[in-house]
Amino acid sequence: MSEHTNNAEEIRIKALLEAWTDAVRRHDVPAIIAHHEPDILMFDLPPPLQCKGIEAYEKTWDLLFRYHQPGTAFDIQELTITAGQDVAFGAAIMRCGPDSSSNPADKDGFLFRLTVGLRKVDGHWRVAHEHHSVPATD
Amino acid sequence: MSEHTNNAEEIRIKALLEAWTDAVRRHDVPAIIAHHEPDILMFDLPPPLQCKGIEAYEKTWDLLFRYHQPGTAFDIQELTITAGQDVAFGAAIMRCGPDSSSNPADKDGFLFRLTVGLRKVDGHWRVAHEHHSVPATD
Repeated sequence: MSEHTNNAEEIRIKALLEAWTDAVRRHDVPAIIAHHEPDILMFDLPPPLQCKGIEAYEKTWDLLFRYHQPGTAFDIQELTITAGQDVAFGAAIMRCGPDSSSNPADKDGFLFRLTVGLRKVDGHWRVAHEHHSVPATD
Repeated sequence: MSEHTNNAEEIRIKALLEAWTDAVRRHDVPAIIAHHEPDILMFDLPPPLQCKGIEAYEKTWDLLFRYHQPGTAFDIQELTITAGQDVAFGAAIMRCGPDSSSNPADKDGFLFRLTVGLRKVDGHWRVAHEHHSVPATD
C-alpha cells in the first residue's frame, strides 16, 4: 500500500494519539479533549449506543475514571493509520487497566479495539469520531 | 463543517455502503467483499478481538449468517461520512435481524455501531477497515 501512505501525516497523528493516551492515563480531561471536534461522534465501550458532541464526549470519561486508576495502562498495543491530506483514520488494539479491585484476574487489565476518525482543520488534525469496543460475548 | 465536506465522494461512498448492506441481506458473499482491500482489518461484533486480511474477513460472515435470515434487516439507520480525496471514514447506527427464533423480544432485531475506513485505489473507493460493536453490558 505504499502508494497510499502519507508518512508525515501518519507521524503527526500517531503523536496526537500518544499524547491523548498520556492525558487519559493522567485523568487530564482538558488535555483529553484538546484536539477533538465540537461535533465529535463517540461510540463508547459501555452504553449508551452513541454520544454526540464534545460535552457528551467529555462526560464519558467520568465513567472510565471510576474503573481506571491514574498512571495505570491506557496504552496503544498495535496501531494502523491511514492518512490523506485532510481526512484520516486509525485502528488500534489498546490495553486498559487494571482496576483497583485487587482481583488477580484483572491484574493485566483488558484489551479493547479503538477506531479514530480525523479531519484536518486549519492545518491541524482534529478527532471527529471515536469507536471503542470489546467483542460481544453473548 | 461545510469546509470539510466533499459531497461527490460522500455520495459515492454512501452508494458503496448501501450496495454492501444489500449484499449482506442477500447473503451474497462475493458482492459483500467486492470492494474490500486484501489487507482489511476487521473488528467484528463477536470474538475474536481482530481479523486481518480478506480471507479472515470473508469467514466472519459465516457466523452472522447462522443468526441472520436472508432478506431481514441489515440496514443503515444513521450515517455520517467524512471524505477527503483519497481517504474517508463513515460512522453508522445499524439494525440487524431479527433471527429465526420467533422470540418476541427479538422481533425487531438489534442495533449496533459500525465504523468503516476507506481509501481510494485506482480511482475507486475500497474498504480497508470495519469496526462493528454493541455497547458492553458487564
